[in-house]
Amino acid sequence: MPYTPLPSPRILLGPGPSCVTPRVLEALGREPIGYLDPELFTLLGELRSGLRKLFGTSNDFTLPLTGTGMAGMESCLVNLIEPGDSVVIGVAGFFGTRMVEISRRLGAEVTVIEGEWGRILEPEQFEKALKNLSKVKLVGCVHAETSTGIKQPLKAIGKLAHDHGALFLVDAVTSLGGLPVNLDDAGADAAYSATQKCVGAPPGLAPISVSDRAWKAVDARKGAVPNWYYDWKLLRAYFDDAHLYHHTVPVNLYYALNQALAETMEEGMENRFSRHEQVSKLLTDGLNEIGIYPFAQEGYRLPTLNAVIIPADVQDEMAVRKRLLFEYGLEIGGGLGHLKGKIWRIGTMGASATPRNVLLLLAALKSILHN
Amino acid sequence: MPYTPLPSPRILLGPGPSCVTPRVLEALGREPIGYLDPELFTLLGELRSGLRKLFGTSNDFTLPLTGTGMAGMESCLVNLIEPGDSVVIGVAGFFGTRMVEISRRLGAEVTVIEGEWGRILEPEQFEKALKNLSKVKLVGCVHAETSTGIKQPLKAIGKLAHDHGALFLVDAVTSLGGLPVNLDDAGADAAYSATQKCVGAPPGLAPISVSDRAWKAVDARKGAVPNWYYDWKLLRAYFDDAHLYHHTVPVNLYYALNQALAETMEEGMENRFSRHEQVSKLLTDGLNEIGIYPFAQEGYRLPTLNAVIIPADVQDEMAVRKRLLFEYGLEIGGGLGHLKGKIWRIGTMGASATPRNVLLLLAALKSILHN
Repeated sequence: MPYTPLPSPRILLGPGPSCVTPRVLEALGREPIGYLDPELFTLLGELRSGLRKLFGTSNDFTLPLTGTGMAGMESCLVNLIEPGDSVVIGVAGFFGTRMVEISRRLGAEVTVIEGEWGRILEPEQFEKALKNLSKVKLVGCVHAETSTGIKQPLKAIGKLAHDHGALFLVDAVTSLGGLPVNLDDAGADAAYSATQKCVGAPPGLAPISVSDRAWKAVDARKGAVPNWYYDWKLLRAYFDDAHLYHHTVPVNLYYALNQALAETMEEGMENRFSRHEQVSKLLTDGLNEIGIYPFAQEGYRLPTLNAVIIPADVQDEMAVRKRLLFEYGLEIGGGLGHLKGKIWRIGTMGASATPRNVLLLLAALKSILHN
Repeated sequence: MPYTPLPSPRILLGPGPSCVTPRVLEALGREPIGYLDPELFTLLGELRSGLRKLFGTSNDFTLPLTGTGMAGMESCLVNLIEPGDSVVIGVAGFFGTRMVEISRRLGAEVTVIEGEWGRILEPEQFEKALKNLSKVKLVGCVHAETSTGIKQPLKAIGKLAHDHGALFLVDAVTSLGGLPVNLDDAGADAAYSATQKCVGAPPGLAPISVSDRAWKAVDARKGAVPNWYYDWKLLRAYFDDAHLYHHTVPVNLYYALNQALAETMEEGMENRFSRHEQVSKLLTDGLNEIGIYPFAQEGYRLPTLNAVIIPADVQDEMAVRKRLLFEYGLEIGGGLGHLKGKIWRIGTMGASATPRNVLLLLAALKSILHN
């Protein structure tokens, strides 16, 4: 039986995971401690406080869920939705469709606010739908659509949700740590993210944050949450004072996340957001020069995930990505859904967002495309 | 904002996580690669092959689920059970009760085969129940009850399940890697485990294995699996040839698990099982000498999790465990459920299972109890 040797050194400029610094990797490889060790709860306290800052929230129930971003999405929907609930979901990309799919599996009546992939959704679309519906339980939308590179303004939608008595759920997977999320300001009642994109840690944890308003809905549920592993009440009994055993938490991922948060606070959140902006601009300016143009609507482009149109003269886009990977160790992403073959998704996130990485990618792309 | 310093060095002799070797920790801290990187699928191929050997199965769908052992349990139940299904669950400990709770949340009609905590369940109990029920979908039982230290014989129960047309589900959380599991021989159709106990890796992954017979039941489902994240059909589309994106898998945990499997194969599975037996015997003999006796039924004691009765003259068992932790860096576990305060659970699992650790624990316990 052979055992995989060291992984090849990759520069991760895809939709995540992103590169991780040596400090975070060193922390990851520390010896585990038990799930009831007092040191674990000290660590968790710091983690939770750091995540609150990144999320821009005072929500007490802010913590790293065991699982990746999609587990975060499912945990929010399964705790907040009951069969028959009316929910309104904004869909202008792949991850919006996933919110819809999971909500439907949970028996919700889903009203889809449909938008063109690559453009934002307008608050008026939500308003129109909300006016025609009675008793909407939840309005969901994606802050940073990883599939299209769009940054969706949240505040107006959050206000509409609240005006109609609904909870507001936000997908912050590709924004947390890379741009301001400001949950409380946006009126978000629940949000989820992932650690392997802009936060600077490896994949495996889904930071989530839940408001008191959302908790009231959870407490008022008629039936039990059909998902035991992600049942917030059970998780609260472990993460909060009672520390009742629920599952054996992945402590090594906590070590890494805490160091990633430390790096973020030391860099300064504003500086970190600026770095993402600057590196994204360096990339998109450089791509522009070699005839590769943005896909996403101007004025609403993410600094973390740069969706670009594959030039018409590229016959085999997969071959380009393979050459980037095998010749230069550079990973970029392809399109999802109907955008497959039409766009590339270039991440400039977390420790991957450096001028060095971007210059190399530009040079490599130029060399591959123009030879 | 302070950041937790290095964790104190712990010798983990609780119910898991167990200690992890430097080789496994080094692998954990390698740089991540993308979830579609060809190197990732090479790694996964090795992982899956190694897990098949540990599980004693030829099941193709054997893989590390993102999540811990409890996620493994839920994934098996949520894929195999539909509302209204009749299931039979053996309960002689805390983890049996969890199988029941999750099954009920999924709308199953659960028949509980109740046994005394600390003793095995007898096949006759299952036979009696199965005779009185029509169309049982699934029979579930725990191979290694982490809460009682009992090793439950499986084969007769597996045969009864099949004779009555039911699937057989096995919890192998505290057995995989520490004693033979032999899924195929036991007639198990689905099983789940965890990496942080006897397998030698950190917490965060749940190895699962699913037979073709169980897949037929999945394919024959009337409704969609209500859990998107752990839907086996979606997972199969990613893990198998199509490699369709499902979620960003925790690649660092894969690195670590693969090295843990490598160590296991290099040690030899039989040698590893013998080591667990020998170290457990060293512990229980030593405990015997200081008046601490086994809790679990003779002849069915796990070599991986040693449940012992707290001596009557111990006034404050928690204080003993705290002294072990703070003075010697030794973690042992307390009792779960109604066994809290009555038993200690001492794990001798994976890299924790060494004579050195056991001699230290015995000496420390002696010093604390007899002073």
